[in-house]
Amino acid sequence: MTTAITRLYRFSASHRLHAPGLSAAENLATYGKCNNPFGHGHNYVLEVTAAGDLDEQTGVLLPLAKLDRLVEETVLRGFANSNMNVDVRQFKHLVPTTENVVLVITELLQQNWETYLTGVPARLRRVHIQETDRNGFEVKLNA
Amino acid sequence: MTTAITRLYRFSASHRLHAPGLSAAENLATYGKCNNPFGHGHNYVLEVTAAGDLDEQTGVLLPLAKLDRLVEETVLRGFANSNMNVDVRQFKHLVPTTENVVLVITELLQQNWETYLTGVPARLRRVHIQETDRNGFEVKLNA
Amino acid sequence: MTTAITRLYRFSASHRLHAPGLSAAENLATYGKCNNPFGHGHNYVLEVTAAGDLDEQTGVLLPLAKLDRLVEETVLRGFANSNMNVDVRQFKHLVPTTENVVLVITELLQQNWETYLTGVPARLRRVHIQETDRNGFEVKLNA
Amino acid sequence: MTTAITRLYRFSASHRLHAPGLSAAENLATYGKCNNPFGHGHNYVLEVTAAGDLDEQTGVLLPLAKLDRLVEETVLRGFANSNMNVDVRQFKHLVPTTENVVLVITELLQQNWETYLTGVPARLRRVHIQETDRNGFEVKLNA
Amino acid sequence: MTTAITRLYRFSASHRLHAPGLSAAENLATYGKCNNPFGHGHNYVLEVTAAGDLDEQTGVLLPLAKLDRLVEETVLRGFANSNMNVDVRQFKHLVPTTENVVLVITELLQQNWETYLTGVPARLRRVHIQETDRNGFEVKLNA
Amino acid sequence: MTTAITRLYRFSASHRLHAPGLSAAENLATYGKCNNPFGHGHNYVLEVTAAGDLDEQTGVLLPLAKLDRLVEETVLRGFANSNMNVDVRQFKHLVPTTENVVLVITELLQQNWETYLTGVPARLRRVHIQETDRNGFEVKLNA
Repeated sequence: MTTAITRLYRFSASHRLHAPGLSAAENLATYGKCNNPFGHGHNYVLEVTAAGDLDEQTGVLLPLAKLDRLVEETVLRGFANSNMNVDVRQFKHLVPTTENVVLVITELLQQNWETYLTGVPARLRRVHIQETDRNGFEVKLNA
Repeated sequence: MTTAITRLYRFSASHRLHAPGLSAAENLATYGKCNNPFGHGHNYVLEVTAAGDLDEQTGVLLPLAKLDRLVEETVLRGFANSNMNVDVRQFKHLVPTTENVVLVITELLQQNWETYLTGVPARLRRVHIQETDRNGFEVKLNA
Repeated sequence: MTTAITRLYRFSASHRLHAPGLSAAENLATYGKCNNPFGHGHNYVLEVTAAGDLDEQTGVLLPLAKLDRLVEETVLRGFANSNMNVDVRQFKHLVPTTENVVLVITELLQQNWETYLTGVPARLRRVHIQETDRNGFEVKLNA
Repeated sequence: MTTAITRLYRFSASHRLHAPGLSAAENLATYGKCNNPFGHGHNYVLEVTAAGDLDEQTGVLLPLAKLDRLVEETVLRGFANSNMNVDVRQFKHLVPTTENVVLVITELLQQNWETYLTGVPARLRRVHIQETDRNGFEVKLNA
Repeated sequence: MTTAITRLYRFSASHRLHAPGLSAAENLATYGKCNNPFGHGHNYVLEVTAAGDLDEQTGVLLPLAKLDRLVEETVLRGFANSNMNVDVRQFKHLVPTTENVVLVITELLQQNWETYLTGVPARLRRVHIQETDRNGFEVKLNA
Repeated sequence: MTTAITRLYRFSASHRLHAPGLSAAENLATYGKCNNPFGHGHNYVLEVTAAGDLDEQTGVLLPLAKLDRLVEETVLRGFANSNMNVDVRQFKHLVPTTENVVLVITELLQQNWETYLTGVPARLRRVHIQETDRNGFEVKLNA
């Protein structure tokens, strides 16, 4: 039996939803009040799930301090207290919908996984972001 | 990588658990206090999960307004503030256990998906109902 | 410094809001969908707060088992899994709005406090009922 | 015994904390990352508490539809999905700390209470805003 | 369509994380403050998910009273209000990390499933333990 | 109008409830399973409320970094990941019921308030500890 750990992180940020290829009317129709030119914001709750076999001696799936450093340095440092449209490089040319936020964060975690978790057998399995009390977004990764 | 959105809806309703084919004693043994002849109720939390590829230009998985209209018109209009045994057609001949509620709602969403979400590539993947703080019921649909 | 304990209880029940002295149109205007003839229901969360001085030897404000027995026997036994309009005596002639529910429960706790908590110096200070995620009702009692 | 109702509203907004009378270094020392020039945001949870005597016939403290209209038209219409520094008039000359947000919203509710709740005996007693899972801000009003 | 039920249980316990095969320095490096010799504790939230086909007549997936008896007698009786290192047999020779706790509880539920749920077609599918607001641990079982 | 801020902190600890002046039977009758000789534990949620007038220029009630340092250095450093009976000096001769925990923490905050929050007009008004999902303990301080 493999086990999975889900670790929760929180950050606050703002975004404006506006697709440059669409007209003003189309942007309003697509994004509604989220197209407000000056942006608005959320308390995002980020869940990172990793799975694998436990270390037999310690009974631990992965060193939490290493996972925390990965998330802190590659995600939170850029996203926390940011205006994502302006402060996060990937959203210069990508609309910061939470669908795109979860994809960008998943890629950041995958690209840096080996660097921060060298030798740890656990693998990234799922990234979930809760944007509001009603909307959650998720990417699942195959075993 | 495909993404999934989970959207949360809330409704309050009442039900009485009573199977017509069982004796009074069997009904009491099966449903306990939920067999109370005058019913009782819950604040149900309904989660609808859909998955698929994002629209590249907008970065959106599905138009939330369309999903909301689907759920509002085919589910909430009938279930919210209802006595499900009396007010919801499907429970005239089906016991409104939350297991059956989640199945009925899943069928309503599937049958009406194309009508409300024409041309949207995202598909229904999961319906979850939280009945109390301790009991949740779920249907998962294959990709 | 006096301390206070808040103990949480949960129960599910149904109600119909309908004032006999009002016309059908007035009832609908007053209660909206909650006037549905067959009722609907909620998961009620009941908080009971008591305050006083600690027992010096035990460091305990009141014996929880006694408070639980008070609430169980005088409140939950009647309200849990009930249709309040029919099953709870007080609502034969009183509309079971949650405002009235919190008043009725406060009176039941006050009337029976001495019987169940004989010799305990802590006093009832507050009764709060959360009816939905958005509506809470409260009675505070003076010291 | 008087009763109180607490009604919960949610809105998302962004803000930047920056006091014009302070130097750049003082602003950074005072507000930390919240001084980020492009702002960040939150999911704010607004609780409005009113207290008074129940209407004897209906058992209702105040008509929720009227309270909702008050909050919708005088608060949410301006704050929801806004960049408060730019979109909310009061913060043109006032730093939109959540301390100030709760004061501004309290004043808006007080000034408009009589207009929206004419003839309703219940009075505003408390306004609370939860800014993050860890920080809540509150104003209490005397009876 | 098969349905799943998730039932939630709560218990409080304490543990000390210390691997006998590691040196004092290695233990401290691995477990940090959780290596504190006198232990610390948590409010654990245990979720048990079972899936299968509903009983057609009753619309019920499994008798909750039977599931509760299984969890109560084989898990909670041993774990609730315990110091797991001392009070739970399996942790005499296994470090009570929450990874191991979820594995031990999964095995207890699997080994006793047939005894407590004879003739019930639903099968155990998932065990999840939330250890703190930020850390959850899970085992999923194949269909 | 004065405003109040409530700041939330979390810590995990274990305790054993046992009053030295009581017999074994009395201890068991008083504390039930919490008298278990090896202790058990909780995730405690600590809320600290302070109230006062805002700094006019900054719109801030108190510098959060200073409050955090007060709580971190005088409370969490001793309580987090501790066995309170053994690791926290005050409980060498006082039963670590959560009633006593909230009193001890209140005293620690009061005694050190001036040192950490010199010149800040906000005053400590309330300390609340949630011990489990059902039990909360509170001390309120007069203005």
